Amino acid sequence: MNTALTSTPVFRGVVPPVATPLLPDGAIDVESLRRLVESLVTGGVDGLFALGSTGETAYFTDAQRVLIAETIVDAAAGRAPVIAGAIELTAERVIDTAQRLIAAGAQAIVTTAPLYTINSQAEIAAHFRRIAAAIDVPLWAYDVPVRVHKKLEIATLMDLAADGTIAGVKDSSGDDVGFRRLVAANEAAGHPLQLLTGHEVLVDAMGLAGADGVVPGLGNVEVEGYVRLWHAVEAGDFAAARTEQLRINRLFDIVFQPTGLSGDATGVGAFKEAMFQRGLIDHPTMARTVTAIDETAVAAIRGILDELGLAAAR
Amino acid sequence: MNTALTSTPVFRGVVPPVATPLLPDGAIDVESLRRLVESLVTGGVDGLFALGSTGETAYFTDAQRVLIAETIVDAAAGRAPVIAGAIELTAERVIDTAQRLIAAGAQAIVTTAPLYTINSQAEIAAHFRRIAAAIDVPLWAYDVPVRVHKKLEIATLMDLAADGTIAGVKDSSGDDVGFRRLVAANEAAGHPLQLLTGHEVLVDAMGLAGADGVVPGLGNVEVEGYVRLWHAVEAGDFAAARTEQLRINRLFDIVFQPTGLSGDATGVGAFKEAMFQRGLIDHPTMARTVTAIDETAVAAIRGILDELGLAAAR
Amino acid sequence: MNTALTSTPVFRGVVPPVATPLLPDGAIDVESLRRLVESLVTGGVDGLFALGSTGETAYFTDAQRVLIAETIVDAAAGRAPVIAGAIELTAERVIDTAQRLIAAGAQAIVTTAPLYTINSQAEIAAHFRRIAAAIDVPLWAYDVPVRVHKKLEIATLMDLAADGTIAGVKDSSGDDVGFRRLVAANEAAGHPLQLLTGHEVLVDAMGLAGADGVVPGLGNVEVEGYVRLWHAVEAGDFAAARTEQLRINRLFDIVFQPTGLSGDATGVGAFKEAMFQRGLIDHPTMARTVTAIDETAVAAIRGILDELGLAAAR
Amino acid sequence: MNTALTSTPVFRGVVPPVATPLLPDGAIDVESLRRLVESLVTGGVDGLFALGSTGETAYFTDAQRVLIAETIVDAAAGRAPVIAGAIELTAERVIDTAQRLIAAGAQAIVTTAPLYTINSQAEIAAHFRRIAAAIDVPLWAYDVPVRVHKKLEIATLMDLAADGTIAGVKDSSGDDVGFRRLVAANEAAGHPLQLLTGHEVLVDAMGLAGADGVVPGLGNVEVEGYVRLWHAVEAGDFAAARTEQLRINRLFDIVFQPTGLSGDATGVGAFKEAMFQRGLIDHPTMARTVTAIDETAVAAIRGILDELGLAAAR
Repeated sequence: MNTALTSTPVFRGVVPPVATPLLPDGAIDVESLRRLVESLVTGGVDGLFALGSTGETAYFTDAQRVLIAETIVDAAAGRAPVIAGAIELTAERVIDTAQRLIAAGAQAIVTTAPLYTINSQAEIAAHFRRIAAAIDVPLWAYDVPVRVHKKLEIATLMDLAADGTIAGVKDSSGDDVGFRRLVAANEAAGHPLQLLTGHEVLVDAMGLAGADGVVPGLGNVEVEGYVRLWHAVEAGDFAAARTEQLRINRLFDIVFQPTGLSGDATGVGAFKEAMFQRGLIDHPTMARTVTAIDETAVAAIRGILDELGLAAAR
Repeated sequence: MNTALTSTPVFRGVVPPVATPLLPDGAIDVESLRRLVESLVTGGVDGLFALGSTGETAYFTDAQRVLIAETIVDAAAGRAPVIAGAIELTAERVIDTAQRLIAAGAQAIVTTAPLYTINSQAEIAAHFRRIAAAIDVPLWAYDVPVRVHKKLEIATLMDLAADGTIAGVKDSSGDDVGFRRLVAANEAAGHPLQLLTGHEVLVDAMGLAGADGVVPGLGNVEVEGYVRLWHAVEAGDFAAARTEQLRINRLFDIVFQPTGLSGDATGVGAFKEAMFQRGLIDHPTMARTVTAIDETAVAAIRGILDELGLAAAR
Repeated sequence: MNTALTSTPVFRGVVPPVATPLLPDGAIDVESLRRLVESLVTGGVDGLFALGSTGETAYFTDAQRVLIAETIVDAAAGRAPVIAGAIELTAERVIDTAQRLIAAGAQAIVTTAPLYTINSQAEIAAHFRRIAAAIDVPLWAYDVPVRVHKKLEIATLMDLAADGTIAGVKDSSGDDVGFRRLVAANEAAGHPLQLLTGHEVLVDAMGLAGADGVVPGLGNVEVEGYVRLWHAVEAGDFAAARTEQLRINRLFDIVFQPTGLSGDATGVGAFKEAMFQRGLIDHPTMARTVTAIDETAVAAIRGILDELGLAAAR
Repeated sequence: MNTALTSTPVFRGVVPPVATPLLPDGAIDVESLRRLVESLVTGGVDGLFALGSTGETAYFTDAQRVLIAETIVDAAAGRAPVIAGAIELTAERVIDTAQRLIAAGAQAIVTTAPLYTINSQAEIAAHFRRIAAAIDVPLWAYDVPVRVHKKLEIATLMDLAADGTIAGVKDSSGDDVGFRRLVAANEAAGHPLQLLTGHEVLVDAMGLAGADGVVPGLGNVEVEGYVRLWHAVEAGDFAAARTEQLRINRLFDIVFQPTGLSGDATGVGAFKEAMFQRGLIDHPTMARTVTAIDETAVAAIRGILDELGLAAAR
């Protein structure tokens, strides 16, 4: 399967999940998205993850998803490879979505275990194999039990690595003990997988533990810190990595400023507000049916940006 | 919104979730599906629920879903109203799916809270309102936390009833204490909602507790029992209802015959195998990536059918 | 084991979990407890469940538990049998507690799966067997996953029934589909177990489904309704049972009046406040470290009692 | 409260949770326990955690717990401070247990949120305050949601730190993102708490993230590695720490050798078997009602010990 794999780019290092700027009426803000991608690429990212959870992919129609992927690929202009999330209920539907995103220029696809269904690990493996067989770019597995409500077990992932079904894992499992064990299993197998952590506040520690990179949602707000942090990890300078991480973690406090709202409203809402305040995007608008954060949270986010000298444009 | 609501049929009584027969290659078995619908309609159902969990809706592409809805509507030929599941990630995507299913003839739409996302009850309410505003047939809420991993709270449902957003609830919550409280809240509000239970082994009890009907997956295997049972409930003859329920519950034991498989493989797998053995459909094939049940389970299911005199055609 | 079993009383019908009245300083209010037991016995109960969750047993020291059991047994004076909860971490500790409670007069013991530990169903079965072998009164199993975070599986319970380890089950599992299946398994085995439901708002329905009785926390506030309700169930008059249940369920709304508090504060807090208002106990004091309900909730509870003509003494 | 706090030892660095060796009949194996403590102390530990989860504390009676604490304190002979787990249902019961353990020589007490009950964070805070007020040694909080099924929130812990209720936290939450945030909150407050991680396979990473020490169950099998590892962390030599961690993590694979058993049987069972094989204790017996591991697992554990040159004495 995956015949194009040898010629396709490897995703490792800093691969932010690109947020999706919106116009006040809910339409995709293509100009802001292009500007955001430009800032990420010039900031030094190693790749771009389109249509992930931070990208609010679940809220968008098929047509919107294609527009988002096309815009990111076009704006990246070959300077950073693009992996796109095909987040759908089950294999046949993932394949449909993946094919549209590949046509839009995505160089790899990432997906989760099936949603809504009640499946065994064997069925989850069959799901990934079915998808990989139907697409001609690398497939990644996205482990995010807080959304999918199923864990991708280490044995399942290593089986899928062994036959070339998957090329990497984005780990947002919250289970760092399990991640350490996955790293060990991957090393024992000859490192067939790239293992990227989604835990943006633990990149120094997960780098020490053997992660191949990071997918930091907060990187949309300021990517330069993550680039410096990862370079320190690669250089083995963990003290420097930690120093950078601690600065970044103060910035991450923006997500705890909104209160009484859902996880989606709070996390991406804070990112978008900070991006808006920094002038990276034109509107902090969230996807439809997600509640906007209030003025108190907006002010608190501004205070954190000011404290860190992340000069707010607004 | 819902301008067509007054002229649309009410769903209550026995409304089975229609299974989706497949050909061995995974394609929709249209002829078997037509035959199944005919058997349900002549068996006395009050409505048909297309594209629910028993219908394996999550596994089908957009085109397959439309074909399934069209086939059921056409086979029902106006003898029973059809409500179709638009099971999708979020509101805009549900709307796209719902509009396709309405065009295919569905007379009502049922959907769940958003999937994959992390939302508040306020956002879940906004989700249903957004959908209801975009379609011109009645909208139902489907409460199935084992799949959606969010509970539709009573206050949320009654708010959505108060402004006419939803016309009914299919309750597969597993929370019968909550269901009893929902019934009470609905009565206090003047019965704006039809409340159907999905707990096919407790229909007598839930009928006593005030359910307006049942959505029995097992009704695909034998619907006549549920029709008799519900008539007994309506007549207030709970002893007769219980007698029928106990017979039915022995039949339900078919779902406990497969072992070591997932919930999807076991439940629908047993239904399809029994339907196949009874000659109601031509193949027991399950949706792609779901594991087939084994010969031991097949034999055990045959034994139960024989015991109950549900003469197997094969 | 359980050599005394043939001569011991059977627990079925209405067996309320006796609340534990406290003095304002947190000491056991023995006089109120005696008065409460008297009201339950004269109200027509079939048995008394001392030291259950409603009895706040988890919050009491060994000495307090003994005092509570002694008081209930003494006040019951042989007019109703007493089963006592030995709610402890693991088998050896349950045995210690059980022996103290048996010495205090308890005629049967009820306990849960182990707490805190991470055990298999085989280990849970061994736990019950170890306890039953060490005590000479009947042992019951209490299934309450919301507190124990483990489910007692049907196969486990029926195994424990088959060898005489347990004499009954108090089901507060919230899983009424499972309860119906347990009833069926118990019937198929010759009814070795008494199966009591803890779902006080579904007694009519669970009676129809085959429960042998009920353990209603709300029975502390007014037990006569449950006695009438259960008599109707036994007479097969489910319409009358439902009518009584609906009246009772309005009373149950008292537990939804406190807001922003924990489950323990809300449920038992409302019961104790209503008992206090009705003059059944002298103080609404809850066990230490549980937050008291506020004046708004107190007033709302008074309103519900007034509406139902449950003349408040205060 | 805690007037003795200033003169009491600080727990940081390597503080293993001491396993509890048993005789084949289930009695405490005092001689093996003394020998184990000697090996830990001479191995360089900074403190000893008696009666934790690895110590199987939940399975022991009050008298056994006292014997265990006395033995550990006596064997340590002042060379390492001893903190003891008072793992009980609720505050009054914790206090009873704690007072017995303090009388047995424990220099600090650690406990969890209440068990079995359904409490708010405010009630959990009241629980810890009630306990701290009743004992005159430092109190620690043990965060282990996999057993307690409640999370100790960061705000709760920092409130309890602010008024001196708790002196430290043993974190076995599995939530390393939350641990990093707790470290940051603790630093911002002036480091009132000692924060020990229970994640024995991530000590290098959690050390980088700011942990003050580790409570490694696996340290019962070989403590010298953890001492070296922690010295490397303290020296800022994270490459050396990682090298040691990777060797240790291979040893940790012993816990994955037993199959089909519970978490308690598997984890502590593997530790005890390896300790037995290394000659550190005389019997691998587990606490009553826990299933013993089988010969296949025993052989696999032996293989791992051999591979690592941890010369098996048996």
